[in-house]
Amino acid sequence: MGEGDDHRHPLDCKMAGMVVYLDHAATTPMLPAAIAAYAEAMSVVGNPASVHSQGQNAKRMLEESREIVATSLACDPIEVVFTGSGTEAINLGIKGLYWARAPRRRILVPGGEHHATLDTVEWLAQHEDAIVEWIPLDDRGRIDLGALEAAIARDPLDIALVSVIMANNEVGTIEPVAEVAALASAHGIPVHVDAVAAYGYIPVDFRILAAAGVSALSVSAHKVRGPVGIGALVLGRATTVEPLIHGGGQQRKVRSGTQDVAAAVSFAVAASALIAHGDENARLMALRDRVIAGVALVAPGAQLNGDPTHRLPGNAHFSFPGCEGDSLLFALDVAGVSVSTGSACQAGVPEPSHVLRAMGRSEVESRGALRITVGHTSTDADVDALLAALPAAHALALAAGMADRVPGH
Amino acid sequence: MGEGDDHRHPLDCKMAGMVVYLDHAATTPMLPAAIAAYAEAMSVVGNPASVHSQGQNAKRMLEESREIVATSLACDPIEVVFTGSGTEAINLGIKGLYWARAPRRRILVPGGEHHATLDTVEWLAQHEDAIVEWIPLDDRGRIDLGALEAAIARDPLDIALVSVIMANNEVGTIEPVAEVAALASAHGIPVHVDAVAAYGYIPVDFRILAAAGVSALSVSAHKVRGPVGIGALVLGRATTVEPLIHGGGQQRKVRSGTQDVAAAVSFAVAASALIAHGDENARLMALRDRVIAGVALVAPGAQLNGDPTHRLPGNAHFSFPGCEGDSLLFALDVAGVSVSTGSACQAGVPEPSHVLRAMGRSEVESRGALRITVGHTSTDADVDALLAALPAAHALALAAGMADRVPGH
Repeated sequence: MGEGDDHRHPLDCKMAGMVVYLDHAATTPMLPAAIAAYAEAMSVVGNPASVHSQGQNAKRMLEESREIVATSLACDPIEVVFTGSGTEAINLGIKGLYWARAPRRRILVPGGEHHATLDTVEWLAQHEDAIVEWIPLDDRGRIDLGALEAAIARDPLDIALVSVIMANNEVGTIEPVAEVAALASAHGIPVHVDAVAAYGYIPVDFRILAAAGVSALSVSAHKVRGPVGIGALVLGRATTVEPLIHGGGQQRKVRSGTQDVAAAVSFAVAASALIAHGDENARLMALRDRVIAGVALVAPGAQLNGDPTHRLPGNAHFSFPGCEGDSLLFALDVAGVSVSTGSACQAGVPEPSHVLRAMGRSEVESRGALRITVGHTSTDADVDALLAALPAAHALALAAGMADRVPGH
Repeated sequence: MGEGDDHRHPLDCKMAGMVVYLDHAATTPMLPAAIAAYAEAMSVVGNPASVHSQGQNAKRMLEESREIVATSLACDPIEVVFTGSGTEAINLGIKGLYWARAPRRRILVPGGEHHATLDTVEWLAQHEDAIVEWIPLDDRGRIDLGALEAAIARDPLDIALVSVIMANNEVGTIEPVAEVAALASAHGIPVHVDAVAAYGYIPVDFRILAAAGVSALSVSAHKVRGPVGIGALVLGRATTVEPLIHGGGQQRKVRSGTQDVAAAVSFAVAASALIAHGDENARLMALRDRVIAGVALVAPGAQLNGDPTHRLPGNAHFSFPGCEGDSLLFALDVAGVSVSTGSACQAGVPEPSHVLRAMGRSEVESRGALRITVGHTSTDADVDALLAALPAAHALALAAGMADRVPGH
């Protein structure tokens, strides 16, 4: 194939060793500038807790990075607590608030949260006497505000916290976070927001959210073209949490451990790009809408899950009746297209989506799900490749689904 | 100063923008190969929890790295739980064992541990009903085994765990970890070892330690020429800990959160170098002994703290009577020499060394301490620079110490 030949068939991509990556919600490629900044910062020597000039130089780099990350979230730098991951931030936000609010025991949480929230509140229930109350979702994945209001009204004084996801990582639904916060803060109840999937795709303005009553908010750098291994809990100045990791007393004594200057510098490069990113969302939505239209042609029975309009710009999430999501995923993978059945965070164990279950779907319906997420490196050619590979993959997955239903098979 | 002129006076270093770094215990420069590997791995796309081929490629890189780190610690790969820091590993080891061993409440800990241990057990005491018993140190910083044995004998069935540092991060004393483990394991009590300061400088062989009764062991990558932002808890196969961070269930469900492939790859490069490092220790000891001899000439009253022979090869820790450690540190910093008053992990707040206090020193004696740690980039020229700068710095610190003692000043 000669140079300048751009009529390569999408199905040739796999053979050419190119993979079409449509799983940007799991993790998205780093910006080259964020990689370069990381590499450069790693050669600077000094622990930012050290008093000498090299330590103070490292500290300056760290604090300048914190300022940029804070700007991208519209919060004060002192409100940014760097963590080792979005998961750690969520754990710190939820456990930290729960412990700080003892002896209150109730935690109100929608049923479709990320596992970092689900598993954390379940641990608090099993281990720390919490009472977890699951707030239902409607069929579009939105929290039932009436049910939340009723749950709060039952005994507001015993509620330790409310935690809510800002945009669902699987089905992409954007949640009415400000309304949730208003209901809770009317009773002085702190609200933690999991903004890991939202950050970088919809505005995450902590000043506005804090005014509505949000106390703490979690994000992750690798979802916004920064590095894996660093996240942040935005913790309002007036909010107290019990630390999760104890030690040297770094970061307002909320999160101990040698601070990762290079990761923070790299995170800041990604955060700057967010601040400047302009109308990238229009481009993502156009790509996503091509995916949605293309899937409807190939599999007219497929259902777009989540809210059709209030959803993340890069997210397309479908149920394919009669298919196992795994079969679709594997067939697409063989064709060189990387997608997901849902969250990438369940350690590779395929299981029915708890988000769809929380939205009222049956277990069978919750198994045929596929998440296709476009991101900053996605192109029309990627969508072409997906749509070219989909008919055969869908036929295979349907056949596998039929075989599964043969009695005794 | 012409090229080829290597008679530059050490005091010119600062003017030339060169800093003499003698604080390798706080953090040590990364290996260039570890930086390069990090940068290269960051451009590989894929969440190791994703099922598709890109995710599985990332997972393979991660697991190969885990194998190398395991080899450097003489443990099985499945026993390596990557964390975001040594501090997190210590928190996971101690809190995880404490919770898993409920309703047992006693924790036995020597008084000179790192803050990651001290603050963790103090939190367990304040918050989770733990009873912490401090085991005394002798004047060389070694745990009093007789006192430990007596404490165990008092009520072995109520002991949740013993935690002990393998080599003290401030004074450098190497602890009799195997003897501690033997005393505890005779009663079925799990032992956590903080090997953060030891790893890379003395053999850390988990197979031998586990045979002696050690259940879990914490290390950090940035102390061994790898990156900040990754550590590991080595968790024996038969040992159960309650997780600290909940979520996607990664790493034996012990530590959730997207696994940091690039950091693990870089850590593995540093770990490989450890495996191959040969007799670097002899070189470090020679440099350190030059420091010790030089300090004795400048300040004959200065006392070498810690065990004179059973100590980390790169560690020289002194008390300078009549001086504030801070004054010495600042005067050396002005001369372009970076050292420490003790741990770098106390968020830059100078205070009397709790390690010296645990060794029976007075508060006044515990304030005049200086830690000088050599490492892989240290040279004779660095020691020359330190020793050239020390007389003036010492005179200044003595004067400052005198001024502090003038009544009413």
